[in-house]
Amino acid sequence: MTTGVRRRMGVEERRQQLIGVALELFSRRSPDDVSIDEIASAAGISRPLVYHYFPGKLSLYEAALKRAADDLASRFAEPHEGPLGARLLRVMGRFFDFVDDHGPGFSALMRGGPAVGSSTTNALIDSVRQAAYDQMLSHLGVVGPAPARLDLVVRSWISLVESTALIWLDGRRVPRTELETQLVHDFAALAAVAAAHDEELATLLRGLLENEPGDGPFTDLAGRLIALASR
Amino acid sequence: MTTGVRRRMGVEERRQQLIGVALELFSRRSPDDVSIDEIASAAGISRPLVYHYFPGKLSLYEAALKRAADDLASRFAEPHEGPLGARLLRVMGRFFDFVDDHGPGFSALMRGGPAVGSSTTNALIDSVRQAAYDQMLSHLGVVGPAPARLDLVVRSWISLVESTALIWLDGRRVPRTELETQLVHDFAALAAVAAAHDEELATLLRGLLENEPGDGPFTDLAGRLIALASR
Repeated sequence: MTTGVRRRMGVEERRQQLIGVALELFSRRSPDDVSIDEIASAAGISRPLVYHYFPGKLSLYEAALKRAADDLASRFAEPHEGPLGARLLRVMGRFFDFVDDHGPGFSALMRGGPAVGSSTTNALIDSVRQAAYDQMLSHLGVVGPAPARLDLVVRSWISLVESTALIWLDGRRVPRTELETQLVHDFAALAAVAAAHDEELATLLRGLLENEPGDGPFTDLAGRLIALASR
Repeated sequence: MTTGVRRRMGVEERRQQLIGVALELFSRRSPDDVSIDEIASAAGISRPLVYHYFPGKLSLYEAALKRAADDLASRFAEPHEGPLGARLLRVMGRFFDFVDDHGPGFSALMRGGPAVGSSTTNALIDSVRQAAYDQMLSHLGVVGPAPARLDLVVRSWISLVESTALIWLDGRRVPRTELETQLVHDFAALAAVAAAHDEELATLLRGLLENEPGDGPFTDLAGRLIALASR
């Protein structure tokens, strides 16, 4: 025996280990292509023992997804200090760290992986989107239900962030830091477009822009748009 | 007998009738909530006879989705005449007509309906997105593979259109014509943001803006953004 004495793990400890092993494998290949045999082998236990802790691949997948969802949602937390553009940019950086680390698993999940359509999976994805939405409204200083047009801007921007990340993962042809900045700019641009139709939103946006420093991403965008339009 | 003589339909005619009946039902309720019994009843035939034409609900659902996908893709076709903003606005109008007509079916499909994850369904959805993508590039005057940043702008905008339509369907709290205009503005805004990082894209965008009339949606947007930024 070269592996030494293997300490016996408790049930919860073993479950957490298997979730970690699964997430590690899903970070390199789509969950569809990872078998229970591989997970068992990577964890150093037998296949029947995996089934002792998780009744099937779906339940292990859902547990792994739960941990990943909690991890992702925790990255949205950002102190309410300093200009909004800089805050958003830091969150985008942490979001792309996550996407970078979980590439194949993230793609498979969002494009229709093995557990898509499972109500547990859909509820987890929705809970992460809701966490992002709640954080955004809180940073925008909105208390209570958001007005319809602001609600649409925030939800559609979150969806744009997701799809941009998915398109980026498919080839990684544009540097991710560029996309992080662009997505912050995109939020300002989508908000500005909607504000053109909604005085309440325009007032909110002007208040935010007033607090932006001259070298922040929002001011940078305004300058670039004006330069582009005036040539 | 008050229904009169029922003419016997051929196989293909009957299949087309059942697809039409299914689409009509899916336009009012989610496919999940529509039974084969209801489809049989609405078509005036027996449940076993439905199974004679379609081996199961999934195959009828996929056939209905195929017809809807062809219908939607055909709405993207737009003559290459006049300013781009006006062309895009007409396409958005036809897209929202479709979404309006197929609300519950569209939502169920895009949010994870009964056939989600089926390779046939995913391939159909992808084919509609690809048709939209091809039309956009062709209207932008791009021949051959799109540069990476333009590819990203067009794909992420298409995704934004989808998610905006889904959010709109959930309550219809913003007038759809406003969203149609906004989505055209959003394209210009996303392209402008990306162009700020990419000289090739900036040149393309400037060329498009030069051809826009003073009262078109793109010029309108530029004016509004400048007004917002300069207050």
